Amino acid sequence: MKKNFEYLTRLRQVMAEQKIDVVIISGTDPHQSENPPHHWRDREWITGFWSTNGTNGTAVVLQDQAYCWTDSRYFIQAEEQLADTGFKMMKEDGPEAIDLIGWIAQNVTKGSTVAIDGMTFSTSLANKIQSELNAANLKFATDFAPFDIINPERPKRPLNKLFVHDEKIVGESVDSKVNRVIEQVTSEGAEAIIMASLDDIAWTTNLRTANDISYSPMFVSYVFLSNKQRILFIDEEKLTDEVKAHLNKYNFEIKPYDAVLDFIASLPENTRLLVDPDKVSRGLFDKVRCNAVFGGTKVAKLKSIKNDSMLRSIDTAMEKDGVALTRFFMMVEREHQKGELTELILSERLREIRLSDPSCVDESFASILGFKEHGAIIHYEATEESNIPVVGDGLLLVDSGGQYIYGTTDITRTVALGTPTAEEIHDYTLVLKGHIAIANAVFPEGTTGHQLDAMARQYLWKEGKAYYHGTGHGIGFFINCHEGPQSIRLNINPTPLEVGMATSNEPGVYYEGKYGIRTENIIITVPAMETEFGKFFKFKTVTLFPYDRRLIDTSIMSDNEIQWVDDYHKMVRDRLTPLLTAEEAAWMETKTQPLKR
Amino acid sequence: MKKNFEYLTRLRQVMAEQKIDVVIISGTDPHQSENPPHHWRDREWITGFWSTNGTNGTAVVLQDQAYCWTDSRYFIQAEEQLADTGFKMMKEDGPEAIDLIGWIAQNVTKGSTVAIDGMTFSTSLANKIQSELNAANLKFATDFAPFDIINPERPKRPLNKLFVHDEKIVGESVDSKVNRVIEQVTSEGAEAIIMASLDDIAWTTNLRTANDISYSPMFVSYVFLSNKQRILFIDEEKLTDEVKAHLNKYNFEIKPYDAVLDFIASLPENTRLLVDPDKVSRGLFDKVRCNAVFGGTKVAKLKSIKNDSMLRSIDTAMEKDGVALTRFFMMVEREHQKGELTELILSERLREIRLSDPSCVDESFASILGFKEHGAIIHYEATEESNIPVVGDGLLLVDSGGQYIYGTTDITRTVALGTPTAEEIHDYTLVLKGHIAIANAVFPEGTTGHQLDAMARQYLWKEGKAYYHGTGHGIGFFINCHEGPQSIRLNINPTPLEVGMATSNEPGVYYEGKYGIRTENIIITVPAMETEFGKFFKFKTVTLFPYDRRLIDTSIMSDNEIQWVDDYHKMVRDRLTPLLTAEEAAWMETKTQPLKR
Repeated sequence: MKKNFEYLTRLRQVMAEQKIDVVIISGTDPHQSENPPHHWRDREWITGFWSTNGTNGTAVVLQDQAYCWTDSRYFIQAEEQLADTGFKMMKEDGPEAIDLIGWIAQNVTKGSTVAIDGMTFSTSLANKIQSELNAANLKFATDFAPFDIINPERPKRPLNKLFVHDEKIVGESVDSKVNRVIEQVTSEGAEAIIMASLDDIAWTTNLRTANDISYSPMFVSYVFLSNKQRILFIDEEKLTDEVKAHLNKYNFEIKPYDAVLDFIASLPENTRLLVDPDKVSRGLFDKVRCNAVFGGTKVAKLKSIKNDSMLRSIDTAMEKDGVALTRFFMMVEREHQKGELTELILSERLREIRLSDPSCVDESFASILGFKEHGAIIHYEATEESNIPVVGDGLLLVDSGGQYIYGTTDITRTVALGTPTAEEIHDYTLVLKGHIAIANAVFPEGTTGHQLDAMARQYLWKEGKAYYHGTGHGIGFFINCHEGPQSIRLNINPTPLEVGMATSNEPGVYYEGKYGIRTENIIITVPAMETEFGKFFKFKTVTLFPYDRRLIDTSIMSDNEIQWVDDYHKMVRDRLTPLLTAEEAAWMETKTQPLKR
Repeated sequence: MKKNFEYLTRLRQVMAEQKIDVVIISGTDPHQSENPPHHWRDREWITGFWSTNGTNGTAVVLQDQAYCWTDSRYFIQAEEQLADTGFKMMKEDGPEAIDLIGWIAQNVTKGSTVAIDGMTFSTSLANKIQSELNAANLKFATDFAPFDIINPERPKRPLNKLFVHDEKIVGESVDSKVNRVIEQVTSEGAEAIIMASLDDIAWTTNLRTANDISYSPMFVSYVFLSNKQRILFIDEEKLTDEVKAHLNKYNFEIKPYDAVLDFIASLPENTRLLVDPDKVSRGLFDKVRCNAVFGGTKVAKLKSIKNDSMLRSIDTAMEKDGVALTRFFMMVEREHQKGELTELILSERLREIRLSDPSCVDESFASILGFKEHGAIIHYEATEESNIPVVGDGLLLVDSGGQYIYGTTDITRTVALGTPTAEEIHDYTLVLKGHIAIANAVFPEGTTGHQLDAMARQYLWKEGKAYYHGTGHGIGFFINCHEGPQSIRLNINPTPLEVGMATSNEPGVYYEGKYGIRTENIIITVPAMETEFGKFFKFKTVTLFPYDRRLIDTSIMSDNEIQWVDDYHKMVRDRLTPLLTAEEAAWMETKTQPLKR
């Protein structure tokens, strides 16, 4: 048995003492983070199933059985890591999926008590669990949190220092943001809001940190806002004098992180408090004694619209990212011939090059850098075990990004090392044609991403090819790389694409065991024209790096598509050349020559 | 005051006698028909707001006030017709819309009683009204139906004779259909079904009639089905010996139409009865004493999938329709020069020509035949008042169809009379390019119409142009011209496009006061290929009539688009020529020549 087993044993002792029959342990934190700080990764040390990025998984512990549910991205990894831990893997998607709550309802004796730590379940999820358990005659407790007791080495909450995100970059004061939030809170029928979502808090306060959350400069805290009061709940060790002055300037009171629970419980009964049930934990919601108004979509949408100052900064971030990629791909070309590269070496070099710019605080996610067949694994992350040499002919897919103080970047380029095959060229061109169809789209106000998505897929579909991920996600401004509410996907998303939204444009195609192709830029929704038929919008592509001309077959492209690539390449060259060395500029010149017609 | 006023006075007397404070009168029938038989058009004679097609409107009567809500298509007509009737028009859409129930909740004294005739409201609508009225402290009665008393001349229920829809055409016996219905009923957790929707009943029984419902060969009835029992509730006068033999062959009992209420009330308590709350009236639902299971989408979907026999028959219907349109448009060309045509004359001639084929029972809707600015009115119907001469230069838009025993047709062609303008040619070509994009689409299994719709609009959008109707609706097989569940629209519709579904493909563009363009064919979903990425589908265009070559600008079309038109025109010529006279064939030859490149 593995190390985790002693934790599991102690957990069962506490369960027995407290008369808890079943515990469900979540994989997230009180802020519903995709990638929670280590402090809250209880499910990882209890089960032994973990990864640096944070993984999706939910544990279920009974006295004589223990299970860990996860999704198809992790089936192989979880099966290996859960061996000899006392936990059995369960599938939450795919043809052999088993519904977690359904399983409990079926397999647990009626009248038993099922418990969670309400702080790590969203209100909506916990409420759903509760109603299903009630229907199955099971009791439900939301205050079971013995993790500090059973693991004395449990990591502490992160205490990284905050810094102020320069208002010259952000283009909007905290006062203005708070006022706009309160305006939306009012329009949703409330008068105050409790914010638990770390991206909303970072956006509202113009504050950031590094390393609370991997790959994202958000910090652990809560914010309460009303017309009369602004409070930041945070561990005081995180605050510098500069940050305190900033908070003071904008009339924020500072209270200890844990004080949020008593504060919420103490709100006058007639307070109309806006609570987003998908973001506020059930543990916090259990403290609400006042009038809770469920809502929050209008508040969450504010940060998706980038103002002119942000858009100018994003241009700067894109230039810096383009320069980093130029240096990286020049190095790849130069060193590929030596035969010593591996995926891990390249991932590390890419990180070094990007972070050599002082305005780049972190990568915006763990690079997906896959050679040949690894390019076909959509969420691939090179590890010591999976790492392969990047030697000989093959496609190299590099999906990466940086957290610049000027904005978050996310770009994918697929390049041919050695000689590409006709198949690879053909598929790359089909993907590029879809990418151009989105980049070039014009659409009326009110259009949603699910209405445009097929345009990116049409050329692949004609040949019976497809990709099973979204074409585009929203992207934050020096916050989360994945940000709502808009998207460009086949899935229904009722949020229209509005002027100022930043979204990715990333079609691809993947052949298991062979190769993968993806091409990704960031596009900004901008006005196109206004006619008797109404307002029309289009996209402005802001990412700056050439496509691989050797992978483009102009014989299956329209004149308009070829012209679009040539125009884009000219913009890339014009914008990046002044920032490059003479050698780099010469390389860029060759990479951005007009396509052969 | 108008004739209606005496009905209104009598209605108010009955309301007073029965202590009803407010009556809501629907515009539909117990079967939720779009176009109800005259028997149920009580709202029309009470308000005086009416049209041949049936209109959308809901009346609200109080002792001292009376209102009629309608939608923007009818604002002008309703305003005129409601003058001096005692009714005031209210808008149910547009910027000045007033919510009907919201109005009642606001304006009626608490504790008052609001009544409906539950037979003419769907269960779901009546339930929604009830919950909103309850919230406003108003009482609700669902059994107020004094219409026979207040109008002794109220039209009777239609007693048209039924006929059998030949199984050789339909390709499926009633036994097979009933078994498939029961299979879906079981899969929805029930064991029996009450069908109220006339299209479901016509489909299941392979029976039709003419004139119960304008433009659709459905007949007024109910059907009950279980594993043990099949019952048709119908006025016996409608049954011929042939139809009785057919029903007997398939083990249908025949009961009087009105007996359905007592029958439903008498079902054993433990019967699990499938009730579609959008189709079954609240009046009927009020009789249910057994275990009602809400559902029915799977049953409704059955008729949307056309089998091979139906598809062969549809080809026949399309050939007949193509011949009729050839004769019609040849006549238009010939007679346009004489200067004596009008929209009404053309609508009548089109009807005559179509119905001269003995297999054509009726038109499938009132022709939308609009010249010049009338082409821009999407639901235009030429009347004595609106009728204009079809003389001189201009675009003529003709949207029409037939109810052939071989299938229902629906086709729109826009043709240039005299000399078209460059603008008209350009816009026609943009619409045609969108029409071809849909006709030519290939897409994976599971794709929905809202995912494809933008393909039809993309070329218009690029120029800031748009149309505000769906691109495609499902079409029935010798039943309703508009049939669910699939569609091709921007609106969300989660129903995937499945093999065998028949859908329209009808993009357009409209300039108020100038001209309108629409191009419409029927397309069938067919398999395209199966690859490692799954199954892919495409469309087969089945409508047969040339586009107007004089309105096509090939300079803005791709080679593929031009080739598609040439191939389509060749198919039209090859299929129709054997059915045409020598003179007609010569005309067709000129209309289907390859486009100039």
